[in-house]
Amino acid sequence: MNKPLILVTNDDGVMAPGIRHLVKYMIELGEVVVVAPDKPQSGMGHAVTITNPLRLEKITVDGDHDEYSCSGTPVDCVKLGVKVVLKRKPDLLVSGINHGANSSINVIYSGTMSAAIEGAMEGIPSIGFSLLDYRFDADFTQSERFIKAIALNTLKYGLPKGICLNVNIPAVKHDMIKGVKICRQARGNWDESFDHRNDPRGKDYYWLAGRFDLHENSNETDEWALADNYISVVPTQFDLTAHDLIPEITKWTFDVEQR
Amino acid sequence: MNKPLILVTNDDGVMAPGIRHLVKYMIELGEVVVVAPDKPQSGMGHAVTITNPLRLEKITVDGDHDEYSCSGTPVDCVKLGVKVVLKRKPDLLVSGINHGANSSINVIYSGTMSAAIEGAMEGIPSIGFSLLDYRFDADFTQSERFIKAIALNTLKYGLPKGICLNVNIPAVKHDMIKGVKICRQARGNWDESFDHRNDPRGKDYYWLAGRFDLHENSNETDEWALADNYISVVPTQFDLTAHDLIPEITKWTFDVEQR
Repeated sequence: MNKPLILVTNDDGVMAPGIRHLVKYMIELGEVVVVAPDKPQSGMGHAVTITNPLRLEKITVDGDHDEYSCSGTPVDCVKLGVKVVLKRKPDLLVSGINHGANSSINVIYSGTMSAAIEGAMEGIPSIGFSLLDYRFDADFTQSERFIKAIALNTLKYGLPKGICLNVNIPAVKHDMIKGVKICRQARGNWDESFDHRNDPRGKDYYWLAGRFDLHENSNETDEWALADNYISVVPTQFDLTAHDLIPEITKWTFDVEQR
Repeated sequence: MNKPLILVTNDDGVMAPGIRHLVKYMIELGEVVVVAPDKPQSGMGHAVTITNPLRLEKITVDGDHDEYSCSGTPVDCVKLGVKVVLKRKPDLLVSGINHGANSSINVIYSGTMSAAIEGAMEGIPSIGFSLLDYRFDADFTQSERFIKAIALNTLKYGLPKGICLNVNIPAVKHDMIKGVKICRQARGNWDESFDHRNDPRGKDYYWLAGRFDLHENSNETDEWALADNYISVVPTQFDLTAHDLIPEITKWTFDVEQR
């Protein structure tokens, strides 16, 4: 039997420690091809490059598998990987391991998860992995066993078209990790502020700051699982329709004279 | 009674004809403040600027309402508008009018819609408007009556927290528009290819190309409504959880030894 073909990407850039660990783990499970951004692309969401050309550079990092550095966003990397680099559709796409959490609503801002969602849109079983530690030298080794197990399950059972997994990993030692919880994204939002500063020429600038506010205490959520030292796995899709609201809004009339 | 406070943004840039028309229509409905990107930001999805400072410049375009040009993404514009520019929470956020469609899965790539989704995340009734005409000199006047009616309904009835509206407008004369259909986002995807070219120095580059493939023929979708010359209104939310799949994946075991 052929080894499964695994496309690896991320949003912290191809040289980030998180993706280097993920590559190492995936090489044990299949044939790995890496297509990842040439620079950090955190917070890029589902951005795609349409008005500029993209560069793709073959690089050698740590092994003899194929690796490419791409000038675009994580979503660009997936599109180029699937349409230009790979000769056949990959059996699995993994994105990460992100330096920092992508739980709750952060999924929508996340380049890591947008790459996985793009994979799902292409019908590829896809997983985004994130570790709850923003540091460059975060310890990505503690969850190795779980990362492989989640990837193996996904290879074995597949995922329905359009669904990917959002996996977040608590930043604790491996013997503290209680297991894996399948859950939903928690309701919360960012209570944001902007630092208002002056540059050396006296001109104003603003820098985004803020604090995450969790709005619920349900034990069905990723935030709850992570706080209890579980790895959270949220099945994730891209239909943004608020189906429940269609009947309600259908009652509106669209006549300007109503004022 | 105070006039409603309306925050206007877009992704084509503050000087694009689409937003200039939207500003003109909204001035008839309330007190308008504009915070929009200083350059085109199409395809930026839900990107947010976290590793760079943001600039905000007060500009004067066509009237005595407040306008700001922002160096960031559409989502940055909403965050800065709400947290820095406005003294109180706006009663309505409108984004657009986009030059080009944001129906079906395009909602996830769209800067226009990400601004509206960000508004919804902040609890602001929000609407993204898009015209199915990519041209700079598209005719944005034909749907004026409907744009105002949808905005007025939203001001009157509000929207549940976390829900915004994705409004797409067929590019036809006003007397051809049959009305407004409340619908869901159609299933489809981009059948993409990359043009592989060489730059003047002989170096490879790739440019995204492609064709949209509609995967269904249901009369409940935005694509169906638009093809029939209706304005499509999709209530849109940001919970990406695939709730139906949670029980299924909960059956997986996470033991590496299963191989």
